[in-house]
Amino acid sequence: MRTGDDEALALVAGLPTIVAAYWRMLGGEEPVDPDPELGHAANFLYMLTGGVLGAEVVRALETYLGAVSDHGMNASTFVARVIVSTRSDFVSAVAGAIGALKGPLHGGAPGPALDVVFEIGEASRAEEVLRKKLGRGERLMGFGHRIYRVRDPRADVLASAAERLYTTDGDKELYDLALDVERTALRLLAEHKPGRNLQTNVEFYTALLLHGLHLPTELFTPTFAVGRVAGWTAHCFEQRALDRLIRPQSEYVGEQDRRWVPLEYR
Amino acid sequence: MRTGDDEALALVAGLPTIVAAYWRMLGGEEPVDPDPELGHAANFLYMLTGGVLGAEVVRALETYLGAVSDHGMNASTFVARVIVSTRSDFVSAVAGAIGALKGPLHGGAPGPALDVVFEIGEASRAEEVLRKKLGRGERLMGFGHRIYRVRDPRADVLASAAERLYTTDGDKELYDLALDVERTALRLLAEHKPGRNLQTNVEFYTALLLHGLHLPTELFTPTFAVGRVAGWTAHCFEQRALDRLIRPQSEYVGEQDRRWVPLEYR
Repeated sequence: MRTGDDEALALVAGLPTIVAAYWRMLGGEEPVDPDPELGHAANFLYMLTGGVLGAEVVRALETYLGAVSDHGMNASTFVARVIVSTRSDFVSAVAGAIGALKGPLHGGAPGPALDVVFEIGEASRAEEVLRKKLGRGERLMGFGHRIYRVRDPRADVLASAAERLYTTDGDKELYDLALDVERTALRLLAEHKPGRNLQTNVEFYTALLLHGLHLPTELFTPTFAVGRVAGWTAHCFEQRALDRLIRPQSEYVGEQDRRWVPLEYR
Repeated sequence: MRTGDDEALALVAGLPTIVAAYWRMLGGEEPVDPDPELGHAANFLYMLTGGVLGAEVVRALETYLGAVSDHGMNASTFVARVIVSTRSDFVSAVAGAIGALKGPLHGGAPGPALDVVFEIGEASRAEEVLRKKLGRGERLMGFGHRIYRVRDPRADVLASAAERLYTTDGDKELYDLALDVERTALRLLAEHKPGRNLQTNVEFYTALLLHGLHLPTELFTPTFAVGRVAGWTAHCFEQRALDRLIRPQSEYVGEQDRRWVPLEYR
């Protein structure tokens, strides 16, 4: 093993255990020990629910964890790299990354993408509800991305996983409604914001998929972390090999020639 | 109060309490509750030792905490800002910053700066020991800084504080030896690395000052954090007001046109 392999493995293996145990304890239940016979995703679901779930459900979570395991130099990954750049440890790096991930502008708000689907309730109301929202200048959660101006490539992967999951073991009606809302939203967004090319983002299918796995909304961001920790630690290895302190320069743009005035003269 | 003032105050007030309580518990002692009559620095020393210390000692720690409270866009401060830039909370930001601070390239190695002084032991041996180290290509801890090519302006502040402390209430012999080692080191560094202009850095006087306060080496970095948390939270306020996600772009410089090969064909 490389130096750090034990740290990385402990973090990737430990995060789902921590999330599941903490979640159960929050609900007044005893934690469930991991089952060494089960795979990574199956174990997470087992430790959450206490039951062994169907292959289709496990496969859907595996697809999700794989699809979100890394995504370039996002804010949380960058935090992990800056922390490791001081020759700090991987646990510190991942703790910092989780702190960034929980922010609503990063991973901290994957729930609301599905709220609009629940609010609409049936396909015939989609256009009316969405037109009202856009008319009021509301942002449609689940559409648009800071970087992508094309469809997020992960959306297709998660969309097929969601389709398989809902078709074999889920609320097919909700799935059809979600697709309907998506089509209507994309049509209205193209009309309202021409030239912006707003596409369905990964939060939309994440919410759909994780909801299909019966995960409560509160667990969406922790489950994101369970997948992303693989990418964080991969970046930690790269940064450690690079061994270069990340310390940006900043430029002072405030008032010049300010003098210090003792407190009693202010 | 602004939004966040309560978070910032809790962090600035809480960090010395946590450090002192944890340190005492590590040593098998009961934590000491803060005394609301005492100031910030006096309370930290009180919670560490259980005793009220002299004005000169308190003043020395206050000078240290003030001198290190902020230092531009260093790695830990940058981590705090990236975390807040996702609209995450100040506690997450400070936890991440501490993770960066503990790295040996940042705040995690202030102890060794004084080790060479202890190793030398008496002024007459300074030149011999230092020449040997430089001859072996060893880096002299306590000298040189990644950014400064002139004397770190904080060094003067800490040097006078250390002088006052050791003169009124300390091991004046150790202080004189440290100054002697410093003079000799600067002379030999100028000789060995002409043009580099290596100056005494803040770690040298930090180690001298904190040692004079009878803080064990293990508490140097936590005490650094106790001071720096004021700057971290100040940056958190600035970043929150700016409300802009920090998410750098990265450029892929690896091999192109790599194809995915299923595991069983590798």
